[in-house]
Amino acid sequence: MKFASSNLKQTNQAQEVPSLAFQFKEYMLTKLKQVNEALEEAVPLQHPIKIHEAMRYSLLGNGKRMCPILCIASCELVGGDEELAMPLACALEMVHAMSLIHDDLPCMDNDDLRRGKPTNHKVFGECIAILAGDALLSLAFEHIASKTKNVSPDCVVRAIAELGSAIGSRGVVAGQIVDIDSEGKEVSMKTLEYIHVHKTAKLLEASAVCGAIMGGADDASIERLRKYARSIGLLYQVVDDILDATKSSEELGKTAGKDLASNKATYPKLMGIDEAKKFAAELVEQAKKEIASFDSAKAVPLFHLADYIARRQS
Amino acid sequence: MKFASSNLKQTNQAQEVPSLAFQFKEYMLTKLKQVNEALEEAVPLQHPIKIHEAMRYSLLGNGKRMCPILCIASCELVGGDEELAMPLACALEMVHAMSLIHDDLPCMDNDDLRRGKPTNHKVFGECIAILAGDALLSLAFEHIASKTKNVSPDCVVRAIAELGSAIGSRGVVAGQIVDIDSEGKEVSMKTLEYIHVHKTAKLLEASAVCGAIMGGADDASIERLRKYARSIGLLYQVVDDILDATKSSEELGKTAGKDLASNKATYPKLMGIDEAKKFAAELVEQAKKEIASFDSAKAVPLFHLADYIARRQS
Repeated sequence: MKFASSNLKQTNQAQEVPSLAFQFKEYMLTKLKQVNEALEEAVPLQHPIKIHEAMRYSLLGNGKRMCPILCIASCELVGGDEELAMPLACALEMVHAMSLIHDDLPCMDNDDLRRGKPTNHKVFGECIAILAGDALLSLAFEHIASKTKNVSPDCVVRAIAELGSAIGSRGVVAGQIVDIDSEGKEVSMKTLEYIHVHKTAKLLEASAVCGAIMGGADDASIERLRKYARSIGLLYQVVDDILDATKSSEELGKTAGKDLASNKATYPKLMGIDEAKKFAAELVEQAKKEIASFDSAKAVPLFHLADYIARRQS
Repeated sequence: MKFASSNLKQTNQAQEVPSLAFQFKEYMLTKLKQVNEALEEAVPLQHPIKIHEAMRYSLLGNGKRMCPILCIASCELVGGDEELAMPLACALEMVHAMSLIHDDLPCMDNDDLRRGKPTNHKVFGECIAILAGDALLSLAFEHIASKTKNVSPDCVVRAIAELGSAIGSRGVVAGQIVDIDSEGKEVSMKTLEYIHVHKTAKLLEASAVCGAIMGGADDASIERLRKYARSIGLLYQVVDDILDATKSSEELGKTAGKDLASNKATYPKLMGIDEAKKFAAELVEQAKKEIASFDSAKAVPLFHLADYIARRQS
């Protein structure tokens, strides 16, 4: 069976197959556990204690591990084993944690709450928070380079180039800069998409692409996974915007209603809640279309991951 | 001729050979020019303009390029061509620029002046300064991975692991954390050395080691260069401490007398100016001893580099 069709009806059919739904939940929990164990091991509490405490504070705990799981699922989709992608998966979460720590700083988003607990600088102070982010970022690259096993070095080098590009001044940072520049201004749909594709989708894109590289994928498969990830990345942000506008801080584990309070451009604001939800549904279908040509048994996790992101409540 | 002897007399002899001295000055100026051209090309002014302006502001201009030159000289010492090490050399300067930008922030050293001009956050604001640092750090790894040519990928991977380790929570960041922790406290010579070896020497160590890796060095040569670089790294900091205590802000191009004003532990403070100068001379000799077994014609630049660091006036 192939997930060839890409309309909503087919999504609903997939949801109605209980065994697949159950399998996905198990898959996610298993991967989450394995990623968390690998992360715990990747950053032991060593000298100097304070910096490692700060790094672990934001890296470990109750994150969704969306990037690591997407990375591993992409590696497995193209025929690779989980262990080939695990150091990269951990590195992605380190990069993600770094960007959250720096994003939450007083001179940036000035956020006090993240994943249901005080932000890094609230606990350790701004200075240590900045350094913890820097250390996580350099550790991410070190970890890929020193811990990846049984992957040809040219694939490791390619993945490092891809990740570096995704998070730098033409990737995540570009999105953050345009976002900051847009504050208090009238923002077009095109600019909003630029911000979200760069701020959010780029890291998910790198997760899928690098996972596929580690799994030994050909270029065509890598590009399909890139498009899939770009769609679910944008989807993730559209859903985030919808949740921010409709949920409480308690439900989200972070400050809710911030976008409205700061007069920030969001999808619900530019197109209304209903249209934003419709756009989200379209993105799910676009994503599924990209992976429809892969072996369906191996594509199941990614198929469900798109639905999972669309339906998340926090 | 080998630089086998390592006493001060021999240093003086080397200084008395005008052709070598002239050669070194030329060598430094040539390398400086080549590194600056490569850096200019590595970070073009592109969209989003503001972040690339901020990155270029701190990366380009009148830096000493100590890390890139050490990296290239180490590569050449072991028989490699300059071009093998140039992407890595640029990456080292990006990492250095990142650490200066973040170090100068109000919550860190709160410095207004760097290399004779206002610090990055004074010009672009804290938020952009933090992001410019993050972008330079990720670009550093991307640049090594995507621009290094004619080096086997396993050497590239090894150099990336080495660099990541040198600048993270067991490297430069460890030195910064222990430095911050030591403020206002009585600091032992051992702690002061830990701070300086990590804050300053680690990046120079990575410069020499990674340059040698790119040049195809054997492990024994790599380890000799590591020790050489650790000595000149510590030397660099001892000289920095001496200059801070004896020069004006105008002469240094950065705020002078800061260590004394902030009651910071320094070598002159712990051992007195004269003893600090004696210690600097010892470090020069230790460094030279490590490279005495290399072919003297190829080792000349590194030999003179040690003297250059010892005698710098800003």
